Amino acid sequence: MAIPPGVSERDFSLALSEFAGAVGREWVYTSAADMDLYRDAYSPYQGESEDRAPSAAVAPDRVEQVQQIVRIANRYRIPLWTISTGRNLGYGGSSPTLSGSVILDLKRMNRILEVNDKTHYAVVEPGVSYFDLYRHIQERGLKVWIDPADPGWGSPLANALERGGGRTPMRDHWNAVCGLEVVLPDGELLRTGMGALPGAEVWHQYKYGFGPIVDGLFSQSNFGIVTRMGIWLMPSPEAYRDGRVMVPRHDDLVPFLEHYAYLMNSDILRGTMLLDSPLLNYHASQGGSFFDMPGGPSIAELDGLARDRNLPYWGAEFRFWGPPKLIEAQWEYVKERYSTIPGAMFTEGRNYVFPTEIDSADATLPVALGIPTLGVFGLLQGGGHLGFSPIIPMTGEAVFKAQRVFGQLYAEMNLPAGNQFFALPWSYSPRALVLLFGIPLSADIEQNRNGRRIFERMVEASAANGWGEYRTHVAFMDHVADTYSFNDHAMRRLHERLKDLLDPNGVLSPGKSGIWPRHMREG
Amino acid sequence: MAIPPGVSERDFSLALSEFAGAVGREWVYTSAADMDLYRDAYSPYQGESEDRAPSAAVAPDRVEQVQQIVRIANRYRIPLWTISTGRNLGYGGSSPTLSGSVILDLKRMNRILEVNDKTHYAVVEPGVSYFDLYRHIQERGLKVWIDPADPGWGSPLANALERGGGRTPMRDHWNAVCGLEVVLPDGELLRTGMGALPGAEVWHQYKYGFGPIVDGLFSQSNFGIVTRMGIWLMPSPEAYRDGRVMVPRHDDLVPFLEHYAYLMNSDILRGTMLLDSPLLNYHASQGGSFFDMPGGPSIAELDGLARDRNLPYWGAEFRFWGPPKLIEAQWEYVKERYSTIPGAMFTEGRNYVFPTEIDSADATLPVALGIPTLGVFGLLQGGGHLGFSPIIPMTGEAVFKAQRVFGQLYAEMNLPAGNQFFALPWSYSPRALVLLFGIPLSADIEQNRNGRRIFERMVEASAANGWGEYRTHVAFMDHVADTYSFNDHAMRRLHERLKDLLDPNGVLSPGKSGIWPRHMREG
Repeated sequence: MAIPPGVSERDFSLALSEFAGAVGREWVYTSAADMDLYRDAYSPYQGESEDRAPSAAVAPDRVEQVQQIVRIANRYRIPLWTISTGRNLGYGGSSPTLSGSVILDLKRMNRILEVNDKTHYAVVEPGVSYFDLYRHIQERGLKVWIDPADPGWGSPLANALERGGGRTPMRDHWNAVCGLEVVLPDGELLRTGMGALPGAEVWHQYKYGFGPIVDGLFSQSNFGIVTRMGIWLMPSPEAYRDGRVMVPRHDDLVPFLEHYAYLMNSDILRGTMLLDSPLLNYHASQGGSFFDMPGGPSIAELDGLARDRNLPYWGAEFRFWGPPKLIEAQWEYVKERYSTIPGAMFTEGRNYVFPTEIDSADATLPVALGIPTLGVFGLLQGGGHLGFSPIIPMTGEAVFKAQRVFGQLYAEMNLPAGNQFFALPWSYSPRALVLLFGIPLSADIEQNRNGRRIFERMVEASAANGWGEYRTHVAFMDHVADTYSFNDHAMRRLHERLKDLLDPNGVLSPGKSGIWPRHMREG
Repeated sequence: MAIPPGVSERDFSLALSEFAGAVGREWVYTSAADMDLYRDAYSPYQGESEDRAPSAAVAPDRVEQVQQIVRIANRYRIPLWTISTGRNLGYGGSSPTLSGSVILDLKRMNRILEVNDKTHYAVVEPGVSYFDLYRHIQERGLKVWIDPADPGWGSPLANALERGGGRTPMRDHWNAVCGLEVVLPDGELLRTGMGALPGAEVWHQYKYGFGPIVDGLFSQSNFGIVTRMGIWLMPSPEAYRDGRVMVPRHDDLVPFLEHYAYLMNSDILRGTMLLDSPLLNYHASQGGSFFDMPGGPSIAELDGLARDRNLPYWGAEFRFWGPPKLIEAQWEYVKERYSTIPGAMFTEGRNYVFPTEIDSADATLPVALGIPTLGVFGLLQGGGHLGFSPIIPMTGEAVFKAQRVFGQLYAEMNLPAGNQFFALPWSYSPRALVLLFGIPLSADIEQNRNGRRIFERMVEASAANGWGEYRTHVAFMDHVADTYSFNDHAMRRLHERLKDLLDPNGVLSPGKSGIWPRHMREG
């Protein structure tokens, strides 16, 4: 049996008995078979000694048990690694940053505490999945939509804490959070925002409470365990429609994104946009690159190819949710605005008035309709991926620069830079774009070594250009935190001071987001 | 000359010389005449010994000077009270919570560092006013709107930190904040969010950075001094229109607000709504009450009065910003939806396509058009007011309950409960309503004593009903913080631990939001 680092076998065994006393013997796992389930099935260190593995797992059913576990962990200095439900693919699965951590598995805390379809919010525990929440709403005929992450098995609470994104107007999941209940590292219970007022009527309707706002401290964090969360929902819209906008030339991306920013920041375009490129799709299918590679075709040549093949250089599907006449007016205005780009083309898309049957052929459409699925996996080539996701400005110039920077990098590293599922930016959050790269992993150690090298080079190249990652794999949290180094790492030093204050024994998720407790900082 | 409590005359005088060395002698104020300017002109303790007064003031020009001042303050244990610009009327003006504090006046740090009208944000220092920012944008013909607070002399940075509100779709000012620069209590410089990455390209476009989010710690706070802030702006809309919706009966408020929540949470209604009542206006003009007073007319009688006088019970002006056809479609849909309430009435309002002349007769209209003014003062009766502002749910039932609770209180206290400027709820923030009471103050000590008693009773009555205040006057921060008492004041205890960690000498704004440094907590 694995043992947490720095803990004696005797203490570990005593701690496990006490965990069993708190939650029941059947909810403490220690077998190798059980531990395998908590490893990252697509680890970038698969088969290598650095692969992260837990020592045990404990699954509480309610908040009092979480408090007891945290207190026991403090007594025996047991590192806990908190997970909710779902798979966290691309970011390390359920595996801890520190090998030997005990997984605190919150899957049994799966209560949907409230869904309000008059003021549009839900209150959930960590183990609730998008599927659970969707089913709950459907069964009761409630008039609200959820905003699922692409894989529907995820936890709305955990995805929001990790600052994940969806595809509807509520896509910025952390921004939809309103009111937390948190177990602090000493076992103390905290309610944030208006929840700090006993009997609060607006805990999950008004975010800020009174005085300094502490909610953000518990996002991508090891400062506490969130056991309850309010999440704002969208009122069920009457209708949905979509349509495509395409522009012919490379440089058209500049006005394309300028219009997009205007429309999005005016609440006329409200969902997630995934930029696409019919021209680059074709070019990649002919062995060309999605990126702007040194030695590759010039922009002028690609513009020529686009003209010859009658393929638009850039395009995007725009999606609308609301009353039929209103979303028709929105789409008309979007077309009017984009018509100022010479050669802009439009195609009409789907048009649904609910309730209705939807087009089951498009694997990502259900998510845009608030319906959790696992359809996204059909779009990925087999095997795991290491997620790399830098944030760049919402401008054409920034996309061009990213194309050059990553093109240069792909060239230097002799990488095949063909069609990438995630090579073009998304608008997962308002006001900025994110690039979502998936670096392929496999059972092949050499390939994974190379993948890690690529990842590290990408982090460096991004940081050198002023682009930081919004989230990363558990194995690379230190690397990414290292790039946030302004004023001799003032942010990390503040994070570490907060960690030492709140969790002096360092029992909660050591290493999460690059934050280590004092006694492990030299490691 | 006043002296900060617990500081010797000699140390105070040494500290003032060192402040003068840091910022120049002309920027350290100590005269009684100067100090009067920093007192609350409408203090609820006017003429009484508890009235808060500063001992001196110091006005730095740049962030390095702020760092120096903070370090000097630590050496001599001088309490600083940070202000920006504007008047903070109703909440204590420039006066500190702790008498004898030295005002750290950031009025000279008034640089507009950037306005971006492609991705729509501004970057400002604390001393910039709404007037300054508006003028800067107009002079350059930039295509963005600001969202002013009602008095245009306020600081966009400070108003956002205090979680103030405006009237356009960007009305939730804290929610529009993106990226801070902060001087910590030890003089260390921190950049939050993506700003922690050197050379960050998206500091003011993406809010969250990497790892735990600390930005909220500096809102309504004494944990640091914010010296720079990114604020998201609205792209200049093509047009504006408004219209009124009125419903005839008392109970119509339930569907009225249910439709409103649907429309607002669907981004169809996007600005601040101020509920009004033609019937109660009339009733108050006849000596009746705005509240549901014991012994007052029954709901049935008021419904009868509304019918007899042909006055709608409830109404609101709805405002729309965007392309002409789109906002016409929004207004049409709003009317369609409200038409389901029997007897609903609509009046068409203003209709502007920009650039155009606007109706100068309406004092609050400019603010809704992104134009800072001081027009709001024309609407207030003379003299100061003590602001009382609890948050309630966005439902008719909650408004009825508030009417009863405050009606009961007014009756118990024998208060005139006639027409109140702020007696009906506003939607300053999404998803909840706020009541904004102004309790009149004057030069009369007895009236002020009574006003304070009313205020304290209102805080208690609110808390007993689960409603907390979003912000309060410097003289009442302890009272309000006391109501956020869940789990033996877990939130305040966390605030205090953070205060002791970050500011062990307690030099930054002691008492702000009810947070006192350790050595003053017994006071």
